Amino acid sequence: MIAEQYRKMLDAKSVIRQLSEKATKRAQIIGAENVFDYSLGNPSVPAPAEFKQALLDLIEKEDPMTLHGYSPTLGIPSVKTAIAESLNCRFDMNYGPEHIFPVSAAAAAIAHALRAVTVPGDEVLTFAPFFPEYHPYVDLTGAVLKVVPADTKSFQINFEAFEEMLGPRVAAVLVNTPNNPSGAVYSAETLTKLAEVLTRKAEQYGHDIFLISDEPYREIVFDGKQQPYVSKFYANTISCYSFSKALSLPGERIGYLAVNPACPYAAEIVNMCGQISRGIGHNCPTSLMQLAVSKVLDLTSDFSVYEKNRNLLYECLTDCGFEVVKPEGTFYIFPKAPEADAVAFCQKALQYDLVLVPADSFGCPGYFRMAYCIDTEKVERSLPVLRKMMKEIYG
Amino acid sequence: MIAEQYRKMLDAKSVIRQLSEKATKRAQIIGAENVFDYSLGNPSVPAPAEFKQALLDLIEKEDPMTLHGYSPTLGIPSVKTAIAESLNCRFDMNYGPEHIFPVSAAAAAIAHALRAVTVPGDEVLTFAPFFPEYHPYVDLTGAVLKVVPADTKSFQINFEAFEEMLGPRVAAVLVNTPNNPSGAVYSAETLTKLAEVLTRKAEQYGHDIFLISDEPYREIVFDGKQQPYVSKFYANTISCYSFSKALSLPGERIGYLAVNPACPYAAEIVNMCGQISRGIGHNCPTSLMQLAVSKVLDLTSDFSVYEKNRNLLYECLTDCGFEVVKPEGTFYIFPKAPEADAVAFCQKALQYDLVLVPADSFGCPGYFRMAYCIDTEKVERSLPVLRKMMKEIYG
Repeated sequence: MIAEQYRKMLDAKSVIRQLSEKATKRAQIIGAENVFDYSLGNPSVPAPAEFKQALLDLIEKEDPMTLHGYSPTLGIPSVKTAIAESLNCRFDMNYGPEHIFPVSAAAAAIAHALRAVTVPGDEVLTFAPFFPEYHPYVDLTGAVLKVVPADTKSFQINFEAFEEMLGPRVAAVLVNTPNNPSGAVYSAETLTKLAEVLTRKAEQYGHDIFLISDEPYREIVFDGKQQPYVSKFYANTISCYSFSKALSLPGERIGYLAVNPACPYAAEIVNMCGQISRGIGHNCPTSLMQLAVSKVLDLTSDFSVYEKNRNLLYECLTDCGFEVVKPEGTFYIFPKAPEADAVAFCQKALQYDLVLVPADSFGCPGYFRMAYCIDTEKVERSLPVLRKMMKEIYG
Repeated sequence: MIAEQYRKMLDAKSVIRQLSEKATKRAQIIGAENVFDYSLGNPSVPAPAEFKQALLDLIEKEDPMTLHGYSPTLGIPSVKTAIAESLNCRFDMNYGPEHIFPVSAAAAAIAHALRAVTVPGDEVLTFAPFFPEYHPYVDLTGAVLKVVPADTKSFQINFEAFEEMLGPRVAAVLVNTPNNPSGAVYSAETLTKLAEVLTRKAEQYGHDIFLISDEPYREIVFDGKQQPYVSKFYANTISCYSFSKALSLPGERIGYLAVNPACPYAAEIVNMCGQISRGIGHNCPTSLMQLAVSKVLDLTSDFSVYEKNRNLLYECLTDCGFEVVKPEGTFYIFPKAPEADAVAFCQKALQYDLVLVPADSFGCPGYFRMAYCIDTEKVERSLPVLRKMMKEIYG
C-alpha cells in the first residue's frame, strides 16, 4: 500500500552518488588528499563576503517577525523587483516583478515550469549530454522526456536530430547552457537557430512550444566571454535560475523562475506557479534567503579557480591524446574515453584513485565527466596520475 | 497549451486571502490599529532569542562551504539525530535518524507523506473543521479528499460518520491536532478510539491505512496541558511537523516528517521521500535552517499571549451569547455564527472593522474562525466593538 512508483526509484541509484560513496570509503583508507575525486558538482569556492554580511545585517537589524514571517505566495515583492531590475540591466530585458517567481533553486524552478506548460503524456525534449536529474523532474509530472543525440563535435545542438524529434506532441524543450556536463556555452548562432526552429514548428503544429532554460551556471563562463541570455532569443522562454553555483550556496536552495514578458502567458504562468506550489508543498524559498540574495544580485563567487583548473586539465588531457572539446564555462570537462565502454574506463581509473563519471546516464555513452570544482593543488597532483594511467593501460 | 488544471485554480481564490486583502485596504484608510484583523494565522510573538543566537553563531563561526553546502538528499545526519533524540525524550518514542526526513515545513511534509502512501484514485479522509489547504495538497496527488462531518459538540471526532465513510478505498486519514480552526486538542481517548477503528478496518480490508498527523500547533496547548503524541497510538503514523508556529518562523519553511519506527515501512518511506523530493523539486530545506533549529529543538516562542487572548475572547463571546467550544490550544477560536449564514455574518462584522473568517471552506458552514495571534491590547479594544455589533444587529 505504499506507492510503488517511488519505491521502484530506490533501486535506480545515481551513478554519481555511488561513485562518490566509493571515493569516500577509499578516502577513509588512504586519506582524502590522495583521492582525486572529480565526481561531484559542488562549488569549491566560498560565497562572497558581502553575502555573509547581508545575512548578518538582516539577522541583527531586522524585526524578527518581519524577517522570519510568511513570504507572500508569489515571493517577497521587493525581492522580485530587485531581481527584475538586475536582469533588465544586465540582459536588456523588460521584466517586472510579476514575471519573477522566487523558488528553492533550479530543481524547483524546473519542476514548476514543467507543471505549468505540460500535461501528462506531453513530450519534453532535451539535448544530450544532459543532467540526469531531468528524468525525475519530468517523469514525476507524467510527461515524457526524450533526448536528442549529442553534437559531439562542439556540444552545441544537433539540429538535424532535433528537427526530426520535434513532433506535434512536444510541449516544451529543456536546455542547459553553460552545460552540465559538457561545459559548452550555446552561442548566439545556436540560440537564434533554436528559436527559429521552435517558432516554425509551433506555427506548423498550431500550438505553443515552450523553452525551459536551466541556467545555474549562467555566470561561470571563461576567457572574459558571456553566456548570451537565452530568453532574449525566444518569447515563450521560462528561465530557471539558481544561486547555488553563482554564490556557492547549494544547500540554501534559492533561485527564481523568470518568464519572458513577451510570452503571452507570462504573468499567468507566474500565478499558476503559486498554485502548483500549494499542491507540491513547496511554498516559497525561505524569507531570509530571498532577502539576503536580493542584496548581492550582481555579485558572484570568485570563479578564477575554475578557469585555472579548466586550463590545466584541458592541456593535460589533449596532451594525453584524449578527444575533448574545450569547455567555455561551468566547472566540468567532458572527454571521450579512450575505449568504447566509458564505464569500464572509469572503473580502471578508480584503481588509480581517479574518480571519473561515465556519461551513460548523461545520454552520451563513451564519454566521461570530470567536475573540477576542487583545489588547484589537487588538480596539479592528479595530472601525473592521469598520465601514468594512460601510459600503463593505453600505452 | 498551459496547464488548465493550475490555471483553473487561479479562479478559486482563498477566502482568507480575500478577507485579508480587504482588511489591508481598509487599514490604509482608517489606520491598521483600527482594523481588528482576525483573519491570518501568522505568529505574533517573536522567535526565542536562542534561535537568533544560533543563526549568528553558525554564520560567524562555521566554514561557509560546509554551512551553505548541499544537504544530503535525506537531510543533514546530525540534525536528523538531534530531532530523533528530542522526540524520544519528550514523547517516549524510539526514533532513529533513519525515521526522520527534514522538509520545508508541514506543507511539504504532508505533500511527501501523501505521495508516499497513496496512489491516484485513493481516498484520503479528514475531519471537519479542517485546514482548506488540504484540498490542493491532496488534489494535486490525484487522490480524493473526503471530509468527515464535524462533531460540533466538542470538535473531537464524529466516529459514527467516520466509520461510515472509512471504506476500502481509503489509504490514509489526515488529522490535525491541536486543530486549525477549532483549537480542539484530541484527547488520549479520541486517539485510542481512532487507532482502534483504523486497525480494525485495515484488517477487515486487508490493506494498510496510514495516519498522517499534521502537527504544527503541537506545542501550543493551554492550561498547562499537553497534546498526547499522536504517533504513540498507532504504528502506521507519519507525523508532519513544522517549526513555523512553535518557533515563530513561518517564512523560513522548516520542519520534518517522522515515521513511527513501529511502521513496517518506516525507513523505506523516508527513503521514498528522498525520491519524491527529486521529482517535485523540493530537495531539502535550507542547510542553515536545518542546523539552526537543531540547536533549539526543545524551545518554543512564548505562547502566554495566545492563552491570554483565548481567555479574553472566550469570555466575551460566551457573554455575548455565542455558542463556542473553549479552545484548548492553537491561536484560533471557532464560534457558531448567530445566524445560519456565516458568510453573511462575517460581511456584517466587516462593517464594524472586525475581520472574521466564515468556516464554509473549513467544511463547517455556520461557524467562523478568529485567529487571535495579535496583540492583547488590540484584542481588548475589539471586545466592545464585538459587543456593540451583537447588540445592534442581533439585539
